[in-house]
Amino acid sequence: MDSIKITRETHSKNKTIGGMNLNLRCVVCGKTYGNDVLYTCPACGPEGILDVCYDYEQIQKKFRPEIVAKRPQDIGRYQELLPINGTHQLPPTKIGWTPIFDAAKLASALSVAHLFVKDEGRNPTASFKDRASAVGVAKAQELGFTDIACASTGNAASSLAGAAAAVGLRSTIFVPESAPEPKVMQLLIFGARVVRVKKPATEITAYEAAYDLCTQACERYGWYNRNCAINAYLVEGKKTCGLEIAEQMQTDMPDWVVVSVGDGCTIAGVGKGFAEMQRLGWIAQQPKLLGVQAEGAAPIAKTFFAGGELVPARGDSIAESIAVSKPRNWRKAIHAIRESNGTMIVVTDEEILQAQQLAARLGGVFGEPAGVAGIAGLKKAVAAGVVPSSASVLVVVTGSGLKDISAVRRTLMMPNAIEGEMKALERFLH
Amino acid sequence: MDSIKITRETHSKNKTIGGMNLNLRCVVCGKTYGNDVLYTCPACGPEGILDVCYDYEQIQKKFRPEIVAKRPQDIGRYQELLPINGTHQLPPTKIGWTPIFDAAKLASALSVAHLFVKDEGRNPTASFKDRASAVGVAKAQELGFTDIACASTGNAASSLAGAAAAVGLRSTIFVPESAPEPKVMQLLIFGARVVRVKKPATEITAYEAAYDLCTQACERYGWYNRNCAINAYLVEGKKTCGLEIAEQMQTDMPDWVVVSVGDGCTIAGVGKGFAEMQRLGWIAQQPKLLGVQAEGAAPIAKTFFAGGELVPARGDSIAESIAVSKPRNWRKAIHAIRESNGTMIVVTDEEILQAQQLAARLGGVFGEPAGVAGIAGLKKAVAAGVVPSSASVLVVVTGSGLKDISAVRRTLMMPNAIEGEMKALERFLH
Repeated sequence: MDSIKITRETHSKNKTIGGMNLNLRCVVCGKTYGNDVLYTCPACGPEGILDVCYDYEQIQKKFRPEIVAKRPQDIGRYQELLPINGTHQLPPTKIGWTPIFDAAKLASALSVAHLFVKDEGRNPTASFKDRASAVGVAKAQELGFTDIACASTGNAASSLAGAAAAVGLRSTIFVPESAPEPKVMQLLIFGARVVRVKKPATEITAYEAAYDLCTQACERYGWYNRNCAINAYLVEGKKTCGLEIAEQMQTDMPDWVVVSVGDGCTIAGVGKGFAEMQRLGWIAQQPKLLGVQAEGAAPIAKTFFAGGELVPARGDSIAESIAVSKPRNWRKAIHAIRESNGTMIVVTDEEILQAQQLAARLGGVFGEPAGVAGIAGLKKAVAAGVVPSSASVLVVVTGSGLKDISAVRRTLMMPNAIEGEMKALERFLH
Repeated sequence: MDSIKITRETHSKNKTIGGMNLNLRCVVCGKTYGNDVLYTCPACGPEGILDVCYDYEQIQKKFRPEIVAKRPQDIGRYQELLPINGTHQLPPTKIGWTPIFDAAKLASALSVAHLFVKDEGRNPTASFKDRASAVGVAKAQELGFTDIACASTGNAASSLAGAAAAVGLRSTIFVPESAPEPKVMQLLIFGARVVRVKKPATEITAYEAAYDLCTQACERYGWYNRNCAINAYLVEGKKTCGLEIAEQMQTDMPDWVVVSVGDGCTIAGVGKGFAEMQRLGWIAQQPKLLGVQAEGAAPIAKTFFAGGELVPARGDSIAESIAVSKPRNWRKAIHAIRESNGTMIVVTDEEILQAQQLAARLGGVFGEPAGVAGIAGLKKAVAAGVVPSSASVLVVVTGSGLKDISAVRRTLMMPNAIEGEMKALERFLH
């Protein structure tokens, strides 16, 4: 990874953040900064997302398996690889250290030799995003903020609401007016202040209006902005998923790791975790990354194959969490996939819904559509000969299906009610 | 615990279940049986719930902290204390080993010295019941069943659907016709066959009709019956929560452990786990159990204080999972609470809803109403002087709030939508 090389070259330029030795490197121009830059690259503007660089030679001295093995089981165990000053400001709710299990029946159905599922629905607010929000709230406290905000209707929002509550920050969350009531309730229960934003008369969507208002409010009121599109630290939280897979599977690393892709920063984070664990000698080589996008929202896959700059696409998919029309972290995503010698694949909504049932019925895991898109992608990749049947594969199921069951309604129907007697049951069963 | 004494006295009478050395002892008449009894005591009928007894002297030889510490992190790590022949037939989905975390802000709000939360919503289907269903499906396979059934609308049902799917058993779940669609969808996604039963013209409820039809169907079709009211093995799965707390907190055991109480077998299981860990020398003494019932469904608390036989009560509470009018495991529950020198307390629905918000806003954990009833009970018990402010307390949050957000709707309202401009935001915030 470039960030690794850069670290060594620019170590002397480091500035410290609360005692931390860190550089922030622009993914567009490559320029490095210290902690005096709060969000994106001053030279490149919003496109210039920063990447956190570490001093791996220093880290390697104390970051060893036998030491880490004795630590608490949450993302704080990777403290040397987090851009925060100690773990005391992370939420105490035990984020991360989600289980990996062997899904043998699912492996048979998908025709791969071994299939492991990492169930990110087992995080405190039931998605992968808890990892990012944990780092976000820790960083906010470290920088002296009392408020934190984001624009989201989904897992980023609920994870922020939960993490902020757990550490005692006030959270404000901007959502489009059309956000479904159950999702808003999941924010309100944690005490988040929810701002529902109407669609303006102009061409921009209600979500974009919510995003813009969030940005303005953070500037005006001095709130910390937890939006992955600009905040470099969040992907460091996501990275812990890759670190964990490497630690949990160490001697038995899969050949492929499958991750659904929306904005791009989830797969970028997982890939960065693997790159670091290889750099630090924990694993011999990185697994290949298979990035899976939904057909109606596949601009990163398109750019991955066609090259050039990203062209925004439609953002329509039943897999809402990855239905991103204009992903901001596409450079980091493509970089991570290429570095791993992996590839990308695109799946239809119908394939995602089938995968949701497959995962539940053969794997015992109920994932949200975006959470199981990886399984749909793996199925297609095996059929297409991209992933060989002899492969050992791990799929990251990124979020729980319990948050929004509307997708399930599209494929399943309530059975008819019967009288409470055996005759009626006989008829029902046969 | 009586079961411990009985084991040693009757060891010679043991019959083996798939190589296992087990007794089943009736909680009413005290008679012990081997594995030739499938459900309740033949002498006492449905009241005669059986309790599984183990040979603790034998177990103690190899069940030691340093050995167990190296085992996989799920309920299978307690294999010597489970009534199953090996762990290979448990679901692979990593049931149990849920995190315990220090909830300092909640402790302050509740005026106790230390408060720990054990978040059972972090199980595969997001509730404590996964522990019981895991043992249920393992036992079903061991006994040669291909089908398993239960009557439930709640966590028992979804946990059974998930666990059965994970091991490849067919599940049939009987629900009252009125069961809400989201809960039915959570069963269907796992491939469970859902039988919706109409309320009959007689006095019995639709749930009772579903329960009766389930019992008849199990007999007629040869399905294994996963109903805690008759199945002695399920509480052994629930017990693992107590075993885990003892292992996870070993040197720092809390003074009190708080559990919400419906049928009674959850607190009985947790208590049995503590009793066993004390018997085996892992902990010096058992924590006191605080059993919390909802005002509209508090027959066990009433019997706990008044003595005598249980009198069925109303079964009305917003905390549906504990809204049991005629609990079947009340003897085991009261026995466990008394053995621990604990007590019981009753809370209103309003107190439960307040506790739900408190847990989310100060603890960062979103529990279902029954899941957080323990927090309501603890608050009341501290105010009443039953639990001293100097106490160290652990509350088991038994299930996730994501499964059914209807309770949240009773206390929280959607905010009004605003225009996407700072002026509108200013007005909204102030």
